Amino acid sequence: MNKLRIDSMTNDMVFFSENRSKRPIDKCRYDKDINSSYEEKRECPFCIGNENICGEETFRLEDRDGWLVKSVKNKFPILDEISHEINGVHEVMVDTYRHDGSFYDMSTFEFENLFTMYKDRYINLSKDNKIMYISIFKNFLRQAGASLNHPHSQIVSLPLIPPELEKELSIGKDYYEKNRKCLYENIIEEEINLNKRVIHNSKNFLVIVPSATKYTGEVRILFKEKIKFEDLKEIDIKELAKIFKILFENIEKVEGDMPFNLCIHTYPTNIKSRKYFNTHMHIIPRKYSFGGFELGTGMYVSSKKPEDLALKLKF
Amino acid sequence: MNKLRIDSMTNDMVFFSENRSKRPIDKCRYDKDINSSYEEKRECPFCIGNENICGEETFRLEDRDGWLVKSVKNKFPILDEISHEINGVHEVMVDTYRHDGSFYDMSTFEFENLFTMYKDRYINLSKDNKIMYISIFKNFLRQAGASLNHPHSQIVSLPLIPPELEKELSIGKDYYEKNRKCLYENIIEEEINLNKRVIHNSKNFLVIVPSATKYTGEVRILFKEKIKFEDLKEIDIKELAKIFKILFENIEKVEGDMPFNLCIHTYPTNIKSRKYFNTHMHIIPRKYSFGGFELGTGMYVSSKKPEDLALKLKF
Repeated sequence: MNKLRIDSMTNDMVFFSENRSKRPIDKCRYDKDINSSYEEKRECPFCIGNENICGEETFRLEDRDGWLVKSVKNKFPILDEISHEINGVHEVMVDTYRHDGSFYDMSTFEFENLFTMYKDRYINLSKDNKIMYISIFKNFLRQAGASLNHPHSQIVSLPLIPPELEKELSIGKDYYEKNRKCLYENIIEEEINLNKRVIHNSKNFLVIVPSATKYTGEVRILFKEKIKFEDLKEIDIKELAKIFKILFENIEKVEGDMPFNLCIHTYPTNIKSRKYFNTHMHIIPRKYSFGGFELGTGMYVSSKKPEDLALKLKF
Repeated sequence: MNKLRIDSMTNDMVFFSENRSKRPIDKCRYDKDINSSYEEKRECPFCIGNENICGEETFRLEDRDGWLVKSVKNKFPILDEISHEINGVHEVMVDTYRHDGSFYDMSTFEFENLFTMYKDRYINLSKDNKIMYISIFKNFLRQAGASLNHPHSQIVSLPLIPPELEKELSIGKDYYEKNRKCLYENIIEEEINLNKRVIHNSKNFLVIVPSATKYTGEVRILFKEKIKFEDLKEIDIKELAKIFKILFENIEKVEGDMPFNLCIHTYPTNIKSRKYFNTHMHIIPRKYSFGGFELGTGMYVSSKKPEDLALKLKF
């Protein structure tokens, strides 16, 4: 029998319909990206030696052999500093100097460097007091929106609170006003007690498959305390890096080199929202396509049990 | 310089950033579906001769050689008639008996049959008085969510007003209450006067590229009068069929065999909304992927001018 569940963080409506996974599907090639060619690397703006075709550098971490991660101004920004209406900065953060690297094979040390860079750029971009929100995200593979294969993340500062955050914040606020309790703390408590959708529970972070999400296979990482992303300490970054290392190893075992997006949702820079909101990350698989039903109705269908995925990814 | 536009029908926020189209993009294969094999046709539940592996038939139009279009119960429904929470019917409408046919090569007569079937199934499903909304949609090619290649559309009856419609209706209602005028009539009037985004203007239908849409390349067909989908007369269906025939020929010339979704947005069955809402259709290209920016912020980026596309598709 089919079931309806609501994603309590976003209010998205999800039909679970296990029967749907039994649909016949025409044989079809899976659009997996091929290994990058020598030519591609030679022309890649994010590779060592190609700094002349890359945007202006704003940050780097290096060892004696050269840079390990670096951030550069996006040469093709979504918004730019000269626009009147929408004023902000758009940087590309190169995840690793390794052109063929990915979250699926990065070491804990590489993840530490990555999050250290995220934090530095976040703090730097938040110094402009017209900025209301800073979005950090990552696209892996073409199906997830990446235009270049060299692994990279992005950071965009915005003079407004973007609609998706506006929605999450308002849901959190409403919940707090009704229940005098934080929705996020409630989810964390309930998921730990239930222990059916928990992938990993560490000191500061809870990794779960949400009970309902419009994105089949989504993994969420909730900050257990009311920590701003930019306030993560070195020790917290080490904890997070370990989690990413094992989580992505496990995802690769289950799903292969799956295209995905990482979206970090943290606090707006100027609005007090700690009472009713916790920093969290969405890891969104992009191997599934929405159809006309989803686009036309804003309702979502899933044929996979979150509990099954959590069990497979657990560590 | 970058520009921000709001889609007045959905409130979606779209950044136009022409510069973005100049981004370098790694060479990558385009995931075009291959021609269907003999084996695929032999196993296709929507092909003539395979009625035994197809769902129960509910409607057909035929000539002396056999059926031309038919509707069948979906064997893998999103929701079904036995669920307590969500009770509705899900049918698959086979667009044409031709396995390798598509909107890109269907004749005006085939489109007439298709819309006649849409209307018949709509009227039939709306007889259940628990039903509040009926969604008609179509997925073409895998990237648009189609699991089978044989061209087909779908119809789902719902005991609720789906969120996307709830949103459009509430935007229309708010607009009406503020302006004592219908938003849709206003768009129709303005677009005809401006005449920069009009693809085609016929007696009953206005075909436009919306001034802003989260889906780059979307085409919208607005019903100029307050006609319910199920009240379309034979002559209106002929008019609509002609439009689809030429529109999709033109889309193919510009974009090739592009994956797309068709979503029909009509009135809820039991709520009076004619004052502030017009039936319309969204034709949504699926050759572009959203990235983490779009998913994480709910803001959208487009590097293509709607005016340019309208000019290319004009007839």
